[in-house]
Amino acid sequence: MNEKSAFYTLNGYRLKEDHLLTESMEDYLEMIYRLTQGSHSINVKKIAQRLNVKPPSVSKMMNRLKELDLVIFERYGTISLTWKGKRIGKYLLWRHQIVMRFFKWLNKKEYRLEQVEKVEHFLDDTTLRNMAKFLEKE
Amino acid sequence: MNEKSAFYTLNGYRLKEDHLLTESMEDYLEMIYRLTQGSHSINVKKIAQRLNVKPPSVSKMMNRLKELDLVIFERYGTISLTWKGKRIGKYLLWRHQIVMRFFKWLNKKEYRLEQVEKVEHFLDDTTLRNMAKFLEKE
Repeated sequence: MNEKSAFYTLNGYRLKEDHLLTESMEDYLEMIYRLTQGSHSINVKKIAQRLNVKPPSVSKMMNRLKELDLVIFERYGTISLTWKGKRIGKYLLWRHQIVMRFFKWLNKKEYRLEQVEKVEHFLDDTTLRNMAKFLEKE
Repeated sequence: MNEKSAFYTLNGYRLKEDHLLTESMEDYLEMIYRLTQGSHSINVKKIAQRLNVKPPSVSKMMNRLKELDLVIFERYGTISLTWKGKRIGKYLLWRHQIVMRFFKWLNKKEYRLEQVEKVEHFLDDTTLRNMAKFLEKE
């Protein structure tokens, strides 16, 4: 992890500690970042498909994330991430990948993605960094 | 882990997979098992104190756990675990201790109990057994 991503990481953590983001908000931001790779825009329908939810639920969440200055939600359902949204989305995707790799190491063949998706919301930044450090040595 | 506790473990896991127990029910059963060590009885007031909840909340939960045949809830608030309740309580306490030891190993001085209490509900039996195996080797 370079200095730049460490900076993102700590900021992401601080935002979470303030209880600004619910678990559901985190899932949305991670998915939007994943689908847009932080750059291009996406639409409500695509997000609904990938998260297995209905389009009105996506629209509702986009309005909540817009209020928090995390997404830009334009007419006709076009969505992109703000600078702040990108920063957090990047952190959440990094978190997901670290937890996934850690559980793959721990459980080998019996690894289950479902478990990672539940657990990741509750792991603090210290734990994530220690998991990353451990995986580097393995 | 001997054969007998492995048996308890698997049973505990199966019950959880059936979504019989909520996270809150798990916290109560773990605490009752811890306080009674699976043998003697306890009262509503004591549980309320230890879990930082109000006595009427405890009574309500005891009725739910009684319906599931997990506790014996008698007049005047005396509570003890059924055979099934003891088996699950024992598993939950084992789970808590494994997860706590694992996070202590991972995070050293920066270990936080709060995180363990959130995460433990989402870890499956395979993960717990692999954590236990890893800790034995450390």
